[in-house]
Amino acid sequence: MKAPPYAAASFEVVRRPGGEPERDEVAVEEPLEIRLNGRAIVVTMRTPGHDEELALGLLLSEGVSPLRAEVPPDLPVNTVDVAGEVDLGRLQRNFYSSSSCGVCGKGALEAVAVEAPRVESTLRIERGLLAALPERLREAQSTFPATGGLHATGLFDEAGELLCLREDVSRSNAMDKVIGWAFGESRLPLGGQILCVSGRLSFELVRKAALAGCPVLAAAGAPSSLAVDLARDRGITLCGFVRGGRVNVYSKPWRVEG
Amino acid sequence: MKAPPYAAASFEVVRRPGGEPERDEVAVEEPLEIRLNGRAIVVTMRTPGHDEELALGLLLSEGVSPLRAEVPPDLPVNTVDVAGEVDLGRLQRNFYSSSSCGVCGKGALEAVAVEAPRVESTLRIERGLLAALPERLREAQSTFPATGGLHATGLFDEAGELLCLREDVSRSNAMDKVIGWAFGESRLPLGGQILCVSGRLSFELVRKAALAGCPVLAAAGAPSSLAVDLARDRGITLCGFVRGGRVNVYSKPWRVEG
Repeated sequence: MKAPPYAAASFEVVRRPGGEPERDEVAVEEPLEIRLNGRAIVVTMRTPGHDEELALGLLLSEGVSPLRAEVPPDLPVNTVDVAGEVDLGRLQRNFYSSSSCGVCGKGALEAVAVEAPRVESTLRIERGLLAALPERLREAQSTFPATGGLHATGLFDEAGELLCLREDVSRSNAMDKVIGWAFGESRLPLGGQILCVSGRLSFELVRKAALAGCPVLAAAGAPSSLAVDLARDRGITLCGFVRGGRVNVYSKPWRVEG
Repeated sequence: MKAPPYAAASFEVVRRPGGEPERDEVAVEEPLEIRLNGRAIVVTMRTPGHDEELALGLLLSEGVSPLRAEVPPDLPVNTVDVAGEVDLGRLQRNFYSSSSCGVCGKGALEAVAVEAPRVESTLRIERGLLAALPERLREAQSTFPATGGLHATGLFDEAGELLCLREDVSRSNAMDKVIGWAFGESRLPLGGQILCVSGRLSFELVRKAALAGCPVLAAAGAPSSLAVDLARDRGITLCGFVRGGRVNVYSKPWRVEG
């Protein structure tokens, strides 16, 4: 069965200040398994829709000469098959492994559920303090004003003090650097701290926060659907559009007061 | 020898309107090979600096229990080695292949040079027309206003008409979808067209544009250092900060008139 070509899904969100649950549209993120001549080649996290084009474009970038992509009715959901000619050895060399997603053909949530314990922290944080963090992160970024090209992740304590800031062209690398720092400082798990990122919230960033045991993940930008799903499943308070004193809380809103 | 921990590099840029070359600071992007107990595990595109933390954080996310990361003086540049205990079979399963970068332990430019011919298109485009494309892309994005969470890639013809627009939580997927569409329409190589993206310009996006034969790649956001290097090497006109009637041209400025 083919996944429907939808790009947005409706989720419940709690807006602070305020607090009555409302509905919000969130960009859909789901894994897609791309097969070549029936053989699974790669799993990519994507927004459903135009899956055949995605598979063709991705394999073209890897040197495959695809003939056609198809989604036969008997394929599992979120799977696409491309018929094409390829030197499999060359393909193997070209695909490098990446940390931008941790799933590998398994269901995304399922893949994480076994790895990360639920976050049980009783941390609560005042809305005004939380809402100030992205701006504080931005002010502390040394390179952004010069280049405009770097993502940042900051680790804050419950008083809003910045403990560690790291920048990278990759948002997932910026978070890895902060978690690597915390490991070196013997601060894992991050039970009483807040992770704040400069951009949007993907599945992979929530996954990394969950593995680090962090109870609150905040961002200036929007979350994806799978980011919200995972945060709810792992007990993480996920905050998006954190700006101008306001916070959209997509999961575990009890940790955000006021 | 260890890579120096720098995050920005100075590049020559031509600002239109105007046209005298100036210097501009660009976020540095370079490949990092992460080894585990001396064995190459993964190559990630990153901003140099805090490489040991990055390696530790990335491997922690993959279930490795690292003991320490080190950059011995005899390691090649852009390499880091982590000593840790790991079930290599489990690691293999956890690392999934991704299209977010196409290098695999090889030098990044070297890896591409053999794959993509230089773009020889004689296309020229008027600055005002080019400068309007990101805004036109934004207006055409159907889902962005609802979710704030989707990247977009648009393919425009030389008159500025939008031929194809695709959205995705991943910027690299959005471009793959457009290139897959162009393949299906028998429009490759894209000798007379312009690719425009909603966000920033990474090495991987320039690589995909090069493989598709596209002479002009434009973005509302900033380019990385490796994006500029690759565009210059492959003969692509790379335009960043395209907004408000202005264009920063980082390579092959002769294609942008006015």
